[in-house]
Amino acid sequence: MNSKKIPAPTVGRLSIYLKCFSELSVSGVDYASSGHVAKLMGLNPAQVRKDLAYFGKFGRRGYGYSVESLKENISKILGTHKEWKVGVIGAGNLGSALLMYGGFMNRGFKIAAGFDVDPAKLGWELNNVRIFHIDELENVIKREKLEIVIITTPKDAITGVVERLKKTRIKGVLNFAGRHLISADDFVVRNVDLALEMEQLTFFITNKDGVLKEGSAGEKDE
Amino acid sequence: MNSKKIPAPTVGRLSIYLKCFSELSVSGVDYASSGHVAKLMGLNPAQVRKDLAYFGKFGRRGYGYSVESLKENISKILGTHKEWKVGVIGAGNLGSALLMYGGFMNRGFKIAAGFDVDPAKLGWELNNVRIFHIDELENVIKREKLEIVIITTPKDAITGVVERLKKTRIKGVLNFAGRHLISADDFVVRNVDLALEMEQLTFFITNKDGVLKEGSAGEKDE
Repeated sequence: MNSKKIPAPTVGRLSIYLKCFSELSVSGVDYASSGHVAKLMGLNPAQVRKDLAYFGKFGRRGYGYSVESLKENISKILGTHKEWKVGVIGAGNLGSALLMYGGFMNRGFKIAAGFDVDPAKLGWELNNVRIFHIDELENVIKREKLEIVIITTPKDAITGVVERLKKTRIKGVLNFAGRHLISADDFVVRNVDLALEMEQLTFFITNKDGVLKEGSAGEKDE
Repeated sequence: MNSKKIPAPTVGRLSIYLKCFSELSVSGVDYASSGHVAKLMGLNPAQVRKDLAYFGKFGRRGYGYSVESLKENISKILGTHKEWKVGVIGAGNLGSALLMYGGFMNRGFKIAAGFDVDPAKLGWELNNVRIFHIDELENVIKREKLEIVIITTPKDAITGVVERLKKTRIKGVLNFAGRHLISADDFVVRNVDLALEMEQLTFFITNKDGVLKEGSAGEKDE
């Protein structure tokens, strides 16, 4: 498997496949046909076969795809077979919501620390996660072995935060701060812009008849 | 311009182009070269020319791209040249953060109402947006002419919410509820899964050397 060859829309669907195979596994299903998977994914079976072909030969004639093998393999490709320790920078409304977000832990992401500039928040605990003062950022990253940070600070604070992160061993940044960041040598950035999610939605509403046949808007191929 | 022909990664970049041209416009820039735009976008100039070619001939030899024309055109394609009225279903941590999120209004999304099952929250106002009881959903959608809803309810509540939305004129759903929804005839769904954003990040961390050359992880072409 050469990750270079995986098309971007397939990469975007990997997490959904992982969820799909995890749910099948929990339901006690050992093998699933491309038709079955396609139905769960809102895709057509040909697309499913094409996508899954990137991850090796998991289909067994007459049986379908091995749920466990695919689950394990996709998890390895996504890097979620290990636990990642995560810090949240900015403990405002969004930061607090993310510190308490229930959906991370069972997907391998352990929120281990929060950071804020407000001295009044120092020592707070949200969902057993402690809030540190931003001054302690480098120390806590090192001590807690954080590899990923989620940034929810105001826009203007982000440049300063990024400069400080460059001197740490942080490998990835999930950025909610509203200013588009470019990935650097030091770490990989993924920008989450909630208004952008809305714009993608209105694109598909506006162009519904022309573009959408089936599947969810976010995962439509060209 | 036929939206059918726009590749998915280009659609995904439209919002970033819009932001880029909006910022250039604010800075008083009338024309921008593909090299200038490429630098702002973290892409190469050839990719920028290819992307922008989908939206007609905006480049003028020796001048570059007309910032205003592109801004207006991309906005029309995205459907954000008009204002969309939005409701937020679920006023927990995430819902409250979204009700107060500053980044929607200046991009054409007016949060006009919140909904929750908790009678104690009835009549609350967050950022001048009132919280209604979920029982009033259909009435408020009609009265306030809401076209989009953001769902942040617990997973188990989503099926009930979707059934009720089908009887309304809602055109789009941004779903944060953690259960993958498929777009139906009634409305377009875009699923936002925050753990998925993390998984996409760890994919690019894990496969960094093989996959990432430049640009941000989320927008890399195959």
